[in-house]
Amino acid sequence: MNKDSLRALLQELADNKVSVEEVMESLKVLPFQDMGFAKLDSHRALRDNFPEVIYCPGKTVAEIVMLVEKTVEAGQNVLATRANPEIYEGVRARVSGAQFDQRARVLWIMTNSVAIRGRVAVLTGGTADIPVAEEAALCLETMGASVNRIYDVGVAGIHRLLTRINDIRQAQVLIVVAGMDGALASVVGGLTSHPVVAVPTSVGYGANFGGLAPLLTMLNSCAPGVGVVNIDNGFGAAALAFAIINAINTDT
Amino acid sequence: MNKDSLRALLQELADNKVSVEEVMESLKVLPFQDMGFAKLDSHRALRDNFPEVIYCPGKTVAEIVMLVEKTVEAGQNVLATRANPEIYEGVRARVSGAQFDQRARVLWIMTNSVAIRGRVAVLTGGTADIPVAEEAALCLETMGASVNRIYDVGVAGIHRLLTRINDIRQAQVLIVVAGMDGALASVVGGLTSHPVVAVPTSVGYGANFGGLAPLLTMLNSCAPGVGVVNIDNGFGAAALAFAIINAINTDT
Amino acid sequence: MNKDSLRALLQELADNKVSVEEVMESLKVLPFQDMGFAKLDSHRALRDNFPEVIYCPGKTVAEIVMLVEKTVEAGQNVLATRANPEIYEGVRARVSGAQFDQRARVLWIMTNSVAIRGRVAVLTGGTADIPVAEEAALCLETMGASVNRIYDVGVAGIHRLLTRINDIRQAQVLIVVAGMDGALASVVGGLTSHPVVAVPTSVGYGANFGGLAPLLTMLNSCAPGVGVVNIDNGFGAAALAFAIINAINTDT
Amino acid sequence: MNKDSLRALLQELADNKVSVEEVMESLKVLPFQDMGFAKLDSHRALRDNFPEVIYCPGKTVAEIVMLVEKTVEAGQNVLATRANPEIYEGVRARVSGAQFDQRARVLWIMTNSVAIRGRVAVLTGGTADIPVAEEAALCLETMGASVNRIYDVGVAGIHRLLTRINDIRQAQVLIVVAGMDGALASVVGGLTSHPVVAVPTSVGYGANFGGLAPLLTMLNSCAPGVGVVNIDNGFGAAALAFAIINAINTDT
Amino acid sequence: MNKDSLRALLQELADNKVSVEEVMESLKVLPFQDMGFAKLDSHRALRDNFPEVIYCPGKTVAEIVMLVEKTVEAGQNVLATRANPEIYEGVRARVSGAQFDQRARVLWIMTNSVAIRGRVAVLTGGTADIPVAEEAALCLETMGASVNRIYDVGVAGIHRLLTRINDIRQAQVLIVVAGMDGALASVVGGLTSHPVVAVPTSVGYGANFGGLAPLLTMLNSCAPGVGVVNIDNGFGAAALAFAIINAINTDT
Amino acid sequence: MNKDSLRALLQELADNKVSVEEVMESLKVLPFQDMGFAKLDSHRALRDNFPEVIYCPGKTVAEIVMLVEKTVEAGQNVLATRANPEIYEGVRARVSGAQFDQRARVLWIMTNSVAIRGRVAVLTGGTADIPVAEEAALCLETMGASVNRIYDVGVAGIHRLLTRINDIRQAQVLIVVAGMDGALASVVGGLTSHPVVAVPTSVGYGANFGGLAPLLTMLNSCAPGVGVVNIDNGFGAAALAFAIINAINTDT
Amino acid sequence: MNKDSLRALLQELADNKVSVEEVMESLKVLPFQDMGFAKLDSHRALRDNFPEVIYCPGKTVAEIVMLVEKTVEAGQNVLATRANPEIYEGVRARVSGAQFDQRARVLWIMTNSVAIRGRVAVLTGGTADIPVAEEAALCLETMGASVNRIYDVGVAGIHRLLTRINDIRQAQVLIVVAGMDGALASVVGGLTSHPVVAVPTSVGYGANFGGLAPLLTMLNSCAPGVGVVNIDNGFGAAALAFAIINAINTDT
Amino acid sequence: MNKDSLRALLQELADNKVSVEEVMESLKVLPFQDMGFAKLDSHRALRDNFPEVIYCPGKTVAEIVMLVEKTVEAGQNVLATRANPEIYEGVRARVSGAQFDQRARVLWIMTNSVAIRGRVAVLTGGTADIPVAEEAALCLETMGASVNRIYDVGVAGIHRLLTRINDIRQAQVLIVVAGMDGALASVVGGLTSHPVVAVPTSVGYGANFGGLAPLLTMLNSCAPGVGVVNIDNGFGAAALAFAIINAINTDT
Repeated sequence: MNKDSLRALLQELADNKVSVEEVMESLKVLPFQDMGFAKLDSHRALRDNFPEVIYCPGKTVAEIVMLVEKTVEAGQNVLATRANPEIYEGVRARVSGAQFDQRARVLWIMTNSVAIRGRVAVLTGGTADIPVAEEAALCLETMGASVNRIYDVGVAGIHRLLTRINDIRQAQVLIVVAGMDGALASVVGGLTSHPVVAVPTSVGYGANFGGLAPLLTMLNSCAPGVGVVNIDNGFGAAALAFAIINAINTDT
Repeated sequence: MNKDSLRALLQELADNKVSVEEVMESLKVLPFQDMGFAKLDSHRALRDNFPEVIYCPGKTVAEIVMLVEKTVEAGQNVLATRANPEIYEGVRARVSGAQFDQRARVLWIMTNSVAIRGRVAVLTGGTADIPVAEEAALCLETMGASVNRIYDVGVAGIHRLLTRINDIRQAQVLIVVAGMDGALASVVGGLTSHPVVAVPTSVGYGANFGGLAPLLTMLNSCAPGVGVVNIDNGFGAAALAFAIINAINTDT
Repeated sequence: MNKDSLRALLQELADNKVSVEEVMESLKVLPFQDMGFAKLDSHRALRDNFPEVIYCPGKTVAEIVMLVEKTVEAGQNVLATRANPEIYEGVRARVSGAQFDQRARVLWIMTNSVAIRGRVAVLTGGTADIPVAEEAALCLETMGASVNRIYDVGVAGIHRLLTRINDIRQAQVLIVVAGMDGALASVVGGLTSHPVVAVPTSVGYGANFGGLAPLLTMLNSCAPGVGVVNIDNGFGAAALAFAIINAINTDT
Repeated sequence: MNKDSLRALLQELADNKVSVEEVMESLKVLPFQDMGFAKLDSHRALRDNFPEVIYCPGKTVAEIVMLVEKTVEAGQNVLATRANPEIYEGVRARVSGAQFDQRARVLWIMTNSVAIRGRVAVLTGGTADIPVAEEAALCLETMGASVNRIYDVGVAGIHRLLTRINDIRQAQVLIVVAGMDGALASVVGGLTSHPVVAVPTSVGYGANFGGLAPLLTMLNSCAPGVGVVNIDNGFGAAALAFAIINAINTDT
Repeated sequence: MNKDSLRALLQELADNKVSVEEVMESLKVLPFQDMGFAKLDSHRALRDNFPEVIYCPGKTVAEIVMLVEKTVEAGQNVLATRANPEIYEGVRARVSGAQFDQRARVLWIMTNSVAIRGRVAVLTGGTADIPVAEEAALCLETMGASVNRIYDVGVAGIHRLLTRINDIRQAQVLIVVAGMDGALASVVGGLTSHPVVAVPTSVGYGANFGGLAPLLTMLNSCAPGVGVVNIDNGFGAAALAFAIINAINTDT
Repeated sequence: MNKDSLRALLQELADNKVSVEEVMESLKVLPFQDMGFAKLDSHRALRDNFPEVIYCPGKTVAEIVMLVEKTVEAGQNVLATRANPEIYEGVRARVSGAQFDQRARVLWIMTNSVAIRGRVAVLTGGTADIPVAEEAALCLETMGASVNRIYDVGVAGIHRLLTRINDIRQAQVLIVVAGMDGALASVVGGLTSHPVVAVPTSVGYGANFGGLAPLLTMLNSCAPGVGVVNIDNGFGAAALAFAIINAINTDT
Repeated sequence: MNKDSLRALLQELADNKVSVEEVMESLKVLPFQDMGFAKLDSHRALRDNFPEVIYCPGKTVAEIVMLVEKTVEAGQNVLATRANPEIYEGVRARVSGAQFDQRARVLWIMTNSVAIRGRVAVLTGGTADIPVAEEAALCLETMGASVNRIYDVGVAGIHRLLTRINDIRQAQVLIVVAGMDGALASVVGGLTSHPVVAVPTSVGYGANFGGLAPLLTMLNSCAPGVGVVNIDNGFGAAALAFAIINAINTDT
Repeated sequence: MNKDSLRALLQELADNKVSVEEVMESLKVLPFQDMGFAKLDSHRALRDNFPEVIYCPGKTVAEIVMLVEKTVEAGQNVLATRANPEIYEGVRARVSGAQFDQRARVLWIMTNSVAIRGRVAVLTGGTADIPVAEEAALCLETMGASVNRIYDVGVAGIHRLLTRINDIRQAQVLIVVAGMDGALASVVGGLTSHPVVAVPTSVGYGANFGGLAPLLTMLNSCAPGVGVVNIDNGFGAAALAFAIINAINTDT
């Protein structure tokens, strides 16, 4: 039952073509159907031209291509994460305008342009963290945020970080991507009063334990204002950062 | 060396009472001293009347009382986390105006009033999560945010949560406090496009493993826009939420 | 809005006292309010006289007593888990008919009698597992299932278990409570074609790791038909067993 | 010694061809031989036409083909889990009627038809959980249960799940397959009073830790009536669900 | 049914008072009853005067005292592990001859003397490991093995160990009790060709993690001939050592 | 300094060619040199014709071949574990008499025959555990023990195990190899008074966690007389079993 | 056999009272006895007046007092770690000169003065880390190193650390004591080219997991020159730092 | 702003061409710029000809080659860790003098010779630990330390280690590389008073858990003076050892 059929039903009641009890019965299953729920699927509607996001693992290339085609036909932008060259080839063969960054494993199609707002800084501890950082950065740019990349500023060379203090201070939200000891999040958290999104990566020697080490470091950060997302989850960081940016721009 | 002594030194140079090389030598250690660094200690200065935060564990009652006295004398508000009745008694004996919430283990003194801005919703899965939620809520109120408490809305009774949908939608930032399965963060994350701060708690049966279970649940949340803080860390959630609120109110 | 006020509203529409659009607006928030949701809160309504369940930890004695009083006044049976003598004393002082088993930490009040149906066998590996087993057994009896206790039949003395084979075969559902190696679940699972609910306990020497060892054992059970609940969670086992019993008696 | 030889032995005693003591001696080793034990191997005999189950890993293709041939010759249905295309080819070359689902890694041969009874709903959080869900669904169908697939209804979009409420309510047993945060089990557990079998999957980002995250979530489910099986163990879920279905249909 | 009643039954058959089929029916449940099973409970019968072992945790003092009394009345020796002074007092009040070692938490009563055979060496890394070592040693002595205590010979002072080389070489079985790094098991394993039973203890600084560190060390021992028992499980080590001693003395 | 040079030195003292103090000085460094140490390397000398053991991982084929050649030239038997076909080919090309079992990854050369003594039973829970069991069995046979293979007797079908009770009872030492729930060790431990060597395997579904589940099960075994070796470590089990066999045959 | 008896034996040989072969036989067991081993016990002899170290846990007060008395009588300094007031009282009642720091749990007696050499800086992240830091500092001072305490310089306020850069640079060895995120070690490691000894502490919120979080952070430090000791192990850090100081002063 | 521009600015002030306030403004951002920070980047300047270190993972061959070329042009030595043959080929094609050790995965170019000082012993428990040991050894040699390799001296054959006691005693710093039980670090720590750097390796059977077992062993070492670096981190061990060597040679 959609809004129109509900309105038609109520009109029938107003016209006394159906009884109150018949309408009561029809409304009983209403809550779990469709009327109010379009509003629930809010992320797509975050703002104009927010992309349709496709998480590629576990889907066949054919399934992904079909999803992309449908989205483009619907006039929406596309953002596919954890993509690979094979997926890119599959999409390119059917849809024009696709872009792909292999390091970040991100594929995107900008059917519509987006207005840029919000200043996000994306920092990495080392060069090996860049793929995850780029996943975050590219996702954010597709969503419509401006990104300032501050890479390879790990805390073992604190001066490298401090020389970027102005960039850090100007960002509205900061994403800190770090493997190994993950200590960068704490230091950055101490240099800004803005929200910091911390992304542990699985980069490092043995006792990194697949990202567990920087994950725990970041969760235990002694700096206030740090929120942590899953290991290697650049997209998750971008989504949280964009939710904040969106709040800044629309929620006052 | 502070600003005044630096200015005096430069004046001496301008007056040619010291040589350029002498000033060079003095400036060499400057960066690590005091001049520019007042700006670094930004959290206290987040906004007017932000409280001085004291983390009580590992400090003696005497040390805490001294810190509180000094802060109050300096005309600042006080927020002490993980406090206990003994600390409260100690403070009360020396300083007037102290308030204490035993369940939340929070002690605070509002020397100055704060302007309220920002709407934060604090949700809990069960009643056993309330102490941590109250730590977050009381900290936020001390910082100057308005808090809407939505307690005991765990996902096993999804209707309890859904009847609060309007409250959820009106919040600018949401803090979700949940032990056991920690699933509330994912459901709330799907009901809002605003940032969600997730706080796992150590509440639950055996395989909660001191909060590890909801921690992992929240890190793996399939809803976008969720950032996780440490287990039972109500203050940490408040700090992140307030950083976002602050950004919303000042950073556009 | 409840059913009555909805019916009244629709009647107003049928009487043309309100417009279709006004009713549309009222219905918009309906799904998340109260009408259909009574049906959602299904566990209490599982069957007649199902008790109101109170999980005690994190609640004050006063809060628990109030909940108990309210439930008894409403004519419902009460089942409080993880209770303690202090709670029992508090309840007894205000409500008559309360029973308490200290070992199982279960408190219950049978305001109404329940018809008994379903045959559940509760087995333990050792005597130290009995408190958790009794939590399960007493909860089940309060819910209205008959329980056959088969205690101290750990697999290291397989003959003790095998002499109880007839009891095992006659049960419709089996709850296996075991700490240490938790191996009992696998052996029992192999002796019956009925569902087995496995409850690991935190009983044992060091590398039990608070119940992790039997938990993993049970999850890895090589016998089909075994479902695992949380460590030491006797109530959880009872709830699952009763859901099965209930299905057996009502769902064909 | 089988029943016939035992009977023969007793006949000899009745005929006084052997002494009581000689029979006593023969009976001494009896318990561990064969007489009563046919009844122990109960799972195959759960009901008519229950398939012979072959777990493929660790067996060579030749061994599996031989097992399949023997089973088919014995007139039994075959269910092989964790199969692969090579095994399928090997079987097909020797036996007709084999079916294979690559995604679910299930191979089956229905030598005899089975009567369908029982209504199981299989739900997944995302599309990446479908292979495990299909393993459960196909196994159940081979055993003789009817399956209602409700896929991609993760809790981050709670409305998708709620629109399927009628399907959920009609199932006698529910299997919930979910990776990432595994929160679906708790929400589904709250929507039904029937038993829920929860299957964590190893799907997700880093801190999923090979399925540990949803495993812990499900074990800590705050909804009553949830039993957990091993990570990615679709067959285990089917076996538990079928044990319940079987109990519903035969055990009252 | 016991041997006598079985014999009686068979006699009835021999006398043709019952039919073969009637006896068949009676025998059907036989295997899981009592006849042959006395032989299964083999540990008590390991050798003459093997003590009845009581594991105290989870039992009330009253229950333990009753068990002890019954055992003594039956003329058997008693060995109670993880006992405490309260239990000792309870036993002493009712039974004479009880001995108690508080450090080892072992209580024993030698109703009958045992012949001593077997030479076991019990080694510890440090003095803090002695309680567990004494649990092993006292249990062994109660069982009837001779024990050579070689304490405080941790590998950080390898010479202390090497000066005891003759004692090590003369032992038939060695029990190595060590916390901290647990390295002693490997070194001892390299100094003897006899079986080594390794017992990790929960002694040590933080990253001992309740005995996990020496447990893993011992499992990964690069010396052949090392078997590991549970953390702090002195009794378990004694039981394994005695099984070996018993095999040496009786099984050739 | 070797025995001859020491004897020469002492002779010089007896001949008064050197002083007592000079000999004292020479003897000071003696302990860490070579004299008595040949006796330390005891494992090779466990008994006549004990094989030289080569652990292949981390060594090149060329290095292994060289070691094998040298050993064979020295007239010793060879036992190489964790070998692969490439190593086998390399050895075969240079040395005759090499045998190789691919499933067990064991390569051996019997330059000399060994007298057989000792009866070891090797049991497995499932067929997938056989490679590890065969590693243990083949190693033991090379060492000179007789092995009784009792495979696929997992506890979920307890009757399969019980029908082998006589084999179990006749073994002097038992090796139990099991993955999944690892429960077999406890049941076997309860059926025998002889030492049981438990080997967890990494066989199983997700929450086996690479063998952690059966490892913990076995360490927590409620049956006395069980010692655990490392995951998948068939050789380690053989070494421990042989140390016991050796003790039985030589140490009374 | 000690030096004197060996010398006597050799003298007998020189006097031809015993034969060369008889001496050979006596020397055979020599290496594992006592002669040369005094040299092995090198830590006590690190330098003049190095204290005798007593680790208190697991020892009775009486045992500790006896050890202390014996050491003082022998003219050696005493250092007892993990002591408590009860131990201090016990020692004070028998020996004069004892000093005790309750926060650091260190008791020491300086029977002889020690020459001071070496400059160690001990840093902490927060005030709650000070007890462990003081354990390290007091141990070092007892050993004879000079200590510069630089406390409460956690990385969330990086300027606090940088203002101490000269102190950091002047230290020959640095001990970094930090709980929570443990990030201080990495930053300090980047500010110095001298060895850094990192000590994780169990200070912090839930996901500190008893010090696991900072332990992993420190092991994964991206700064070179960092070595980690056990959680909360202030003495261990002191011992490593002193070994380095000692090497600096004596080993060139 | 560098030193020259700062000096120029101050000269302008001395010449009264700019005002004191203008200089104050310029100095405000100074601390985070460049003046004093050259001194921060201390590791490269540890001593003359210290190599530029390149960590290869996460970098493309092209990026690595470019870094190498730039470094060689700058007249510096190159040390690339975790390199592979492809990288070596890429470097060799562009730069002369490159050396590569495949086992240790180390590539180095000695543009300038280094003076050798410092004596480091590198020990391994087994042959499988040699790759990590060689990484440490080659890195140290490139840095300018002399290395004594003492391989395959695991504690299960303690005499192999003891025969090398003189080598152990002569080293100023010792690096102990061991997998499996990791016990070698404790034994070596007991044989020397010099600092020991312990490197756990991921070598071994199942419960090595990727190096966790020896990592914990080493952290719990009962020998004083042991510092631990990350699993398999040969370079990290070399860096710490060299920091110590450097301190020995320059810091008195």
